[in-house]
Parts: sequence; structure tokens; C-alpha cells
Amino acid sequence: MKKNVAQKLIETHLVDGEMEAGLEISLKIDQTLTQDATGTMVMLELEAMDLDKAKTEVSAQYVDHNVIQEDYRNADDHLFLRSAARKFGIYYSRPGNGVSHPVHMQRLAKPGKTLLGSDSHTCANGCMGMLAMGAGGIDVAMAIAGEPYHVKMPQIMGVKLTGKLSDWVSAKDVILEMLRRYDVKGGVGKIIEYYGPGLDALSAMDRHVIANMGAELGATATVFPSDNVIKEFLQNQGRGDDWVELKADRGADYDLHEEIDLSTIEPLIAKPSSPGNVVPVSEVAGESIYQSYVGSSANPGYRDFAVTAEIVKGKKIAPGISFDINPTSRQLLTQLSDNGYIGDLLAAGARMHQAGCNGCIGMGQAPASDRNSLRTTPRNFPGRSGTREDSVFLCSPETAAASALTGVITDPRTLDMNYPKIKAPKQAGDDGMLEAPPQNNEEIQLEKGPNITSLPDFAPIENNFDIPVLLKMADNISTDEILAGGARVLPYRSNIQRISTFAFEIVDDTYYERAMKARDDHGHAVIAGYNYGQGSSREHAALAPRYLGLKVVLVKDFARIHLQNLINFGILPLRFVNVEDYNKLQEGTILSFKNIHKTIKQLSKFEVEIKDSNETIQVEHDLTDRHIDIILQGGVINWIKNKA
Amino acid sequence: MKKNVAQKLIETHLVDGEMEAGLEISLKIDQTLTQDATGTMVMLELEAMDLDKAKTEVSAQYVDHNVIQEDYRNADDHLFLRSAARKFGIYYSRPGNGVSHPVHMQRLAKPGKTLLGSDSHTCANGCMGMLAMGAGGIDVAMAIAGEPYHVKMPQIMGVKLTGKLSDWVSAKDVILEMLRRYDVKGGVGKIIEYYGPGLDALSAMDRHVIANMGAELGATATVFPSDNVIKEFLQNQGRGDDWVELKADRGADYDLHEEIDLSTIEPLIAKPSSPGNVVPVSEVAGESIYQSYVGSSANPGYRDFAVTAEIVKGKKIAPGISFDINPTSRQLLTQLSDNGYIGDLLAAGARMHQAGCNGCIGMGQAPASDRNSLRTTPRNFPGRSGTREDSVFLCSPETAAASALTGVITDPRTLDMNYPKIKAPKQAGDDGMLEAPPQNNEEIQLEKGPNITSLPDFAPIENNFDIPVLLKMADNISTDEILAGGARVLPYRSNIQRISTFAFEIVDDTYYERAMKARDDHGHAVIAGYNYGQGSSREHAALAPRYLGLKVVLVKDFARIHLQNLINFGILPLRFVNVEDYNKLQEGTILSFKNIHKTIKQLSKFEVEIKDSNETIQVEHDLTDRHIDIILQGGVINWIKNKA
Repeated sequence: MKKNVAQKLIETHLVDGEMEAGLEISLKIDQTLTQDATGTMVMLELEAMDLDKAKTEVSAQYVDHNVIQEDYRNADDHLFLRSAARKFGIYYSRPGNGVSHPVHMQRLAKPGKTLLGSDSHTCANGCMGMLAMGAGGIDVAMAIAGEPYHVKMPQIMGVKLTGKLSDWVSAKDVILEMLRRYDVKGGVGKIIEYYGPGLDALSAMDRHVIANMGAELGATATVFPSDNVIKEFLQNQGRGDDWVELKADRGADYDLHEEIDLSTIEPLIAKPSSPGNVVPVSEVAGESIYQSYVGSSANPGYRDFAVTAEIVKGKKIAPGISFDINPTSRQLLTQLSDNGYIGDLLAAGARMHQAGCNGCIGMGQAPASDRNSLRTTPRNFPGRSGTREDSVFLCSPETAAASALTGVITDPRTLDMNYPKIKAPKQAGDDGMLEAPPQNNEEIQLEKGPNITSLPDFAPIENNFDIPVLLKMADNISTDEILAGGARVLPYRSNIQRISTFAFEIVDDTYYERAMKARDDHGHAVIAGYNYGQGSSREHAALAPRYLGLKVVLVKDFARIHLQNLINFGILPLRFVNVEDYNKLQEGTILSFKNIHKTIKQLSKFEVEIKDSNETIQVEHDLTDRHIDIILQGGVINWIKNKA
Repeated sequence: MKKNVAQKLIETHLVDGEMEAGLEISLKIDQTLTQDATGTMVMLELEAMDLDKAKTEVSAQYVDHNVIQEDYRNADDHLFLRSAARKFGIYYSRPGNGVSHPVHMQRLAKPGKTLLGSDSHTCANGCMGMLAMGAGGIDVAMAIAGEPYHVKMPQIMGVKLTGKLSDWVSAKDVILEMLRRYDVKGGVGKIIEYYGPGLDALSAMDRHVIANMGAELGATATVFPSDNVIKEFLQNQGRGDDWVELKADRGADYDLHEEIDLSTIEPLIAKPSSPGNVVPVSEVAGESIYQSYVGSSANPGYRDFAVTAEIVKGKKIAPGISFDINPTSRQLLTQLSDNGYIGDLLAAGARMHQAGCNGCIGMGQAPASDRNSLRTTPRNFPGRSGTREDSVFLCSPETAAASALTGVITDPRTLDMNYPKIKAPKQAGDDGMLEAPPQNNEEIQLEKGPNITSLPDFAPIENNFDIPVLLKMADNISTDEILAGGARVLPYRSNIQRISTFAFEIVDDTYYERAMKARDDHGHAVIAGYNYGQGSSREHAALAPRYLGLKVVLVKDFARIHLQNLINFGILPLRFVNVEDYNKLQEGTILSFKNIHKTIKQLSKFEVEIKDSNETIQVEHDLTDRHIDIILQGGVINWIKNKA
């Protein structure tokens, strides 16, 4: 049988299951990636598992989210992560070395391998001919410990790229075009594989841009072939030996088909407050902005910053505008500096920030109240910028740079200049700030600062319980809304008691208090519409509500990673059989669950009583036996403990 | 009469009073400087005064403290400050343009002028042949409105510099030598004037380093002559026309005399947790560090970063060390980039931060718990780094760079290399991010975000009251301990109600609650030892406790700026006549004040009863009639209102 790239990657890593869309499969994981915001928890989990050394080929711990260090906590976390990385045989990327996704791509990614990362944009490394997937922290911990990763076999959507991008249009516009066509759940249950003659003119970093925001489509993964473009990229990194070719067989087919003629794409922009809210830039041109922000893993390439620098070179940004440059790796920053681009950006009035995630995750550079912020970041969910009532637009570096000059949203094609052509710099990479673990780890002790606390114990779910609905939420609730990122919240990610006070705060700031009350009784449920839990993979979005007594999440449907996180922490995830039943439930409605232990094993659809009424609603799940086992034991930590 | 530089500056600006040490004089203020952490309050005060346009020759508003922007508040403050600057005829230095002191020096400072700034390191511009003084925000607001500045005529201490600095010893070691000799209150009531043949080899920025940390000596100001070194500096900035010569008359004398042979100085270091705790680096060499931090207004010069880059060039910093570079201005960052030094620093493993105050004021890059941090910043008061129990050492860039390489505190003379010689770059300055105010300000509206609230009203002090002592503090309590800086606290500087919750938190975290209770009664007093209120000029350190009902501060003696701030906000500042009486008072002791309105006018010494005992204690003050008038009216805002 002729195979596409995704099929080849899955087949060579299949541990269990059949490659039929919708069925659970399990995959061998070759590489893992953790970042600091999710990594401390992963390391605590590895400690609890009594792991000696990582069983993967390569695991890497990055420090990119919390590099502001407003007090001892971030700094202590860095020391803890370094000690854990050294102890468990994991690479440690020091603070300031950059964002996990581009650094991993530059230094450790290998075509033909699988990569699981506790960051939803892990999919970015699909650009390297890898099967790269975001997952909850505990899934990654299990992968580091050598357990296969369980996932539903996705459908493979082939996107044929033809033609060539016009001047002033770049890779970001390609993925925005996909989001315009498919919106934020169009990729759910799918691997998106790009192929065709249009690929040749897309550099490895251009492909990174497209693969990265596959997360915003909800896709399980995005896959590119490993071709000569990737070969050259690895050679430039001094890693030519790591290259292998990986291409679809001639005549291979896909479950679903799409085609984009690159020459027809124009500059696009995602309006507030969803990455799927895409229109041509020309449609919103002229709206005034407070900020133009360039960087993040959604535009991490040398060319992205160089083209920005070329556009503003010798000019001054508009008065009053904040023009923020967020470099994505130390390697990139060094190259930009060597080629004079840092000087050009500064001379034009840019604010240069430390290499790391920065404003992309609300860790600095939040916009002013009621002002528009134009960003090359991947997400514009409400509040993610750090400003609660924000107004964030997503665009290409070209559009961001043009708008910085004019002070209003500007189609870069209307600038009176030639489109700058950027030459990629040739430079062997440098691992100076990516520390390899020592061979001998016997002597290494974990360094735990005072803010790093153990996980609380969680009791198994009861058999019969009545619980109130504490929140009724709309469609597309993101994990940013369930548990915010940003500087107020992230420092507590190793402190469940404290971080829980922020749970659902953006949705309803009375939740915490009401949940704490209900917790002493039998806990509570929340309900929501479609695509619940989209966005960031942070497992705290399951862990914190669980600590507050969340037992059941009942929605129209789930985003993939968050669903897995709910299961991992022993929360029962259910869907409405009839979506109209959503209207029957309100905040305060009491749901009555009876004989649940047997029921969920025996029935994928069952009835739940609405207390003090004659009504019931039908709910369903497609949990596997393994999932049910995990939930009934109170989550995967208990499950692993009981297994041992 | 032969005059020294300080006398010339005072004489040419004397509005009222006699130039006799200890007597109050008032001075015409030519220039003012405000930064964002104090500036929002200054601008609200200008608004309350109904000011049309600044009456000074030059006033400038810098944005350097709060540039992280974790939410809308910092960004809103920037918009507010920009609108206020434009409205009131004030220069606006945009975020990312750098720290006020070096930027002011580069772009606006003029020899022969007076400068008043709402930042305690305003004295840094004394390097330019200016009389530059730090003051509370409201003093600066009054200066902008054209009021003269009142200060006690200081003694002038002449420090004769002879000889030449050895290799590996730089300007920072000179001011550390002064701190070793005089400690943190040795400069109180004095202007320190440097002169002599040793000056010739000290660049303008070297002098900035020395003048800057005059604040740590407690000096009213530090003065350097305006000589050919300053002429050349201004010419390099494209501002040669702004130069005038200003030198001491041949044979001029000083009230006090000191001499430093520069050739005898060795690398010095201030140990935790006071800038006065100075020893030779060799005495603590070998102690392991978590962090090496280069930058801040205490080492803002091109040479400071260039020498750091030359030391680490082609090498790698020690594993696990955080090597933080905090550039001080956009101009400097551009020059460093143009000359390849940014690339050298990054290649060695540095973390590059945005130009601004950063870690110097605890706004990021806080050290880990129980780890040593080595910094070129001016202050190491407890908690100022952002980490409550910190361990901060102050040193030169040479010592910081050497230690980054080795991972332990290192005397740079022990490095196996030649001392790098740095050539100053020639480059005309660039005001691209320093916006001049428009000529016509009629149409300009203040832009106030939701976190910017008006000042609360304060009642005049009562005539008779019994109040408890809520805190008993030791010597050298800094304004950082009274009201912390840092990221948690600074965002609330325009919101008195909210910022007050942090008052004295570092000293005793039960204070806020106890003060709020006592407030409903008749308020409270605090007592302390010598040098109370040293450090930062922030007026919130008076304003926040005042809001919480602080009426009387009784200490062994005061630091100058904080004393003025207490008066400005209507708090009665008293000293023990017999310092042993400090031992009679405890937390909880009730002090009984009787007929205070008349008493403080008529007597500079009087008795205060200790309630429920037969004891009294003698207290004193040296408030002028104007001070007493301000205090009896409840502070300078009421005083100005009543005047109008």
C-alpha cells in the first residue's frame, strides 16, 4: 500500500491498535519536550514514579515561559528543573536560550521520530518530518518513563500546496488561510499533512509557522515531509547526520483532501478574540493600534525578524506605539545581532525583550485597556495577552511591521517600498546553553525551593452522588479561560492549593468560593458548549478544578488534549447526546448520578437525573476501558501507584 | 571669595536663605526628571494644581521602572504619562528608551543647571556639573509648577582624587571605597564634590557611576566640575552648544576634606545587605553565586558593558549561572550592537533584557532562595531584588563578569588575561524615542485608565490624641522596607488604597491589619533607630502609611528625602532627645500627645507621656515654620489648596 508521511510515522511507532480512524492506538515516543510552566509538575511526577533515567532517545526540558523572575519562585523552579533534568537524564535549556519549539527544532529534532511535549504547540516540530504532538504533562511524564502514548487514530487530511506566495505574503498567511477555511475546530481528530510543489519555496522555519498553528485548528498533529529543505536546515545547524529522507509514496492517498494555491493568498488577519476569526488585512486597515508585537513560536524564524527589520530600517515607528520584539532563541538573536538587524530595529524604536515566550503567554507586554494589539503570536483568546478585556489581532511580521510604522492596521502591500528579500544566515548552531545531562546521575539531588509542593492525594470517584452545576459556559472555552496563564498565575504552577484560586476566574470570579463550598459536600459539575478546553495543553486546567471538587464536565464536545487531562486527573468527561439538553440545565441545577461505577463500564450512553424534577438527560462518552479504569481509581497517579 | 563648584551652583540659584550649613535655603529649579513609578502621582498632582505648562526650562518624564506590562495597568500608565507630558509641556521618554539617569545625561542635562527628580538616584547627573537632587514626587510637582525647592544648606565635602586606577579597578570601586569609609549615612547633610588631578582619567559616565551612588552615602548631592571631559561627552551627543565650563576657583575651600589616591584602590564589594558593608573582593572570593547581573544606573556606561563583553568573549559562563545583562538605554544598546558586543555577550550565554530599571528595582531577575546574587546595581537592601530573603553583593562590571565565568565570587585580577581597554564609540545621540511636547497643548486630554485614581483627602492633625506604637524598628530602615518596589507592588502606585496593603510588609506582615484597626480610632505611631527612611525617594512610603493612619514617626534620626515626604503628607516626624528612650518603648505602648498644635510651633523639644505609666520621654524636631504649617494643615496638598 502507498503511504503518506503521517501513516509512515505512525506505522513505524505503532505499539498497539489498528490504524483505523477513531480507534485508539498507542505509539512509541522517541523524544519529549517539556517547558518550565508544565515541567515542574512533570518532574514531580517522575520523582513519584521513582524513575532512574529517561527511557526516551531524547528528552529536553526548556525554560521559556517564566523568565521574568519577579521573586524567588521562578528562579527556584529553574534550579529545580536543572537538578531534575540532570538526575533523570534530560537536556536542560537554560533561561534565555529561547522558546522550546524553535530551539528543539534547531538542536534536537530528527526526521522520522515521534515527539510528545507538554505544550500545545509541540506540533510545530511536525515541520521536521516528525510526528509531534502536544499532551498533558502527565502523558509526557509517562512517555519519559517509557510508556507508549495513547491517542485516537486521526484522519489524515492532505493539503496540496501549489503556486508561490506573492510579495508581502508569508507562511503566517498560509496558516491563517487554513484557519479562515476551517476555524478553530476544523482540525479536531485529524493530522494535517502538507505536500505538493508549493513546498519547495517554504523554508523549514516557514513550515514551523504553519505546523505551529495547527494547534489552533485543533489538529492532533501537522506533518511535513523531510526533504532537501530539511536536509539543508540540519546541515546549517551542523547536524547533517541527523537527516533522513521521509516522503509520501508516489500515489499515496489521504482520508480528506484540500488544496491551496499559494499565489492566491493575500495578507490575512485574525480579529479578536479567536484565531479562527480571519479576514483580509484590507478589511480592517486603518484601525488604530496601541501595539505591534513581533515574535513567538508562531513566527520564530530569522526571516520573520529580518523582514521586520528591513521594513522599519531607517524609519521611525509611529508616535505612541509600543513596538515589541520578542526574539525566540539565543541563536536567532545572535544571528540578528551579527547581521545588524538588532541595531536597525532599535534605531527604529523597537523594544527588545529577552528570548522566551514573553507576551505570547501574557508574560509581559500586555496591551492597554480598550486598545488594539497587533501580534504575530498564535492565539488571541480573551485575556491571554494579560489584559482582561483585550483586543488582539493576529497577523504576519510584514503586517505587524507595516502597522508599527503607520500606527494603524496596514496592509503591507500598500507600503511604498520593494519587498525585502532575506538571505538565511549560514551558521552552525551552538549548544552552549543547552546542557546535556551527565552520564552518572547517582549523586544528583533534586533542589526544591519552598514554593514547590507535592501533589495532593485525590480520592476515587464515588458510586452515587448529587452535585450542582456551578458554571454554564458557551462554545470554544479555552484552557486560558479555565486557568489563566500570565504572570499572576504561572508562578504557582507547582502549588496546586494556591493556583486553584485562579480557576475559571475569567469566566466567573465567584467560582472559586462557590466551588470550595460545594467541595465539602460532594463536589460539583460544569457544563459547556462545543470545543471545550481548546488551546494550551496545561494540565493545571484539569488539576486545579479537580482540587476544587470538580467531578463531572458535561459539554457538547471536547478539545482533545484537555479531554485527556480530565481523564488523567479522574474527572468524568461526558457529552450531551441531544445538544438541546444544554438548555435544560442552569447554574444551580443538581445532577444526580447513580451507580456510576458499573454504568460507565457497561454503557456508552446513559441517563442522568435532574434532581427535584421529572426530567432526565441523556449523556454519552467514548472512554476506553483503560480510561474508565483510570477515572474510577481517581486518576492516573493512583492508577500508576496501584499498578506498581 | 573663592568658591567651589557646589557653592557656585547654589549661589546662582538661591531664591531665599543664607548659604550657611544647616539653615534652610530655597533654590530655583531649572530642570526636573520624573520616572513612571513616581510620575503618575506627580502628574495627578499637577492636574490638581490646574497647571497649564511646566515653568521649568526642561522637564522630562521617563518610563523605565514598569516596562514588563503584566496587565493593562502599566500600559495604561504609559498612555496617561504620555498624555500628561504632552499636556503639561514635558518631554516623554518612551518605554524601552532606557533608565532616566543616563538618558537625561545623554540628551538633556546641562552644566550649571539645577535638576530635581522624583528618584533618589537623580544625583547621578551631578556628574555633568549640575546640582542634581532626588526628592519626593510632590516636591518635583511643585518645582514643575515653578515653586523653589527648600532644602537645608548642606556642608560641602571636597574629595580630592589623585593617582590613576589600576587595571581591573573601575569607577564603581571608587564609590565603594567612599562607602567603605563613610557607610550609608556618612553623606547625610552634605554635598560631595570631587576635584583634583585624578578626575582627568574619569570619563563622564565614570563620574555618573560615582555620583549615582552618592545616594547610598545619604548625600544631598554629588558634584563634579564641568571640564573638557564633559565638553567632549556633549559633543559626542551632538550637543556641544550645551556645554559651559564650571570649575572651582583656584584656592577654593571646602567645609570637610577627604582624599583618595585612586592607584591604591583594589576591587571592592558590598556584602549583604547594605551598600555600606564594603570589603575587598579577595575577602569573599570563592563564594558560589546563583547570578551575575550587569547594568542599572550605577553602571550605565558603554564601557561597563563593553568591558563585560570583552571579558566573556569567546568563553562560556559557568554551568547553572544566570548571567543577566540589563542595558540602560536604547542609545547604548544600539552602540553595543553596532560594535558586536551584544553578539559576544549572547554567545557567552548572557540573558539580554529590555533597556530599563529591571532587576535593580526588583522588576524581574530576582535571585533564587538562599543563593548569592552579584550585581552592579546601587543597592542591596533586604528584599529589593524581589526575593525576600536575598543575599545580594554589589560590585564592578569587571568583578561581575569574572565571577560569571567561574561561578564563584572572583577578584578580576586573578583572571588569566590582559585588562581590556575600551574605546568610547563616537555617535551623535538620537531623540527618536524622546518625544518633545507639542507647542500647542490646548486640545490635549489626559488619558486615565481604570487603575488611575485620585488621591484620598487627608484630615489635618488633631490637637490631642493617644496613639499606640505599632512597629518598633532598628537602624537603617529603608523605604524599600517601608513600601516595597517590585512587580507585585509597583503597578498600584496610582491606587493608594491598594498599595497600602503592602506597607511595612517586609518588616512585619501583620502591620496592615493592625493599622487598619487603629485607624478607626486615632491612628498610630512607629518608632525606629538611626537613618530611618534611607534609600529610594518614593513618596508612597509616606503616603501609604498615612492612608493607614500613621500620625507620628519617632526615630533616632531621619534620611533626608523621606523626612521631607513625611512632612509633605502631614505626618509628624520626631526624634528622641535621649536615644536610650528608644528602649522604653515597645510595640503596643500608647503615646499621649497634648496640645500639639501650639507645642510644635513654640518648642523644638517637648515631652510626650507614656500612657498608663509615670514616664515621659523627650522628643525634638527641627521643623521650620513652613514645615509646621504644612503638617498642621494635613500635608502639602491641603496647604496648596488653602493657599490658592
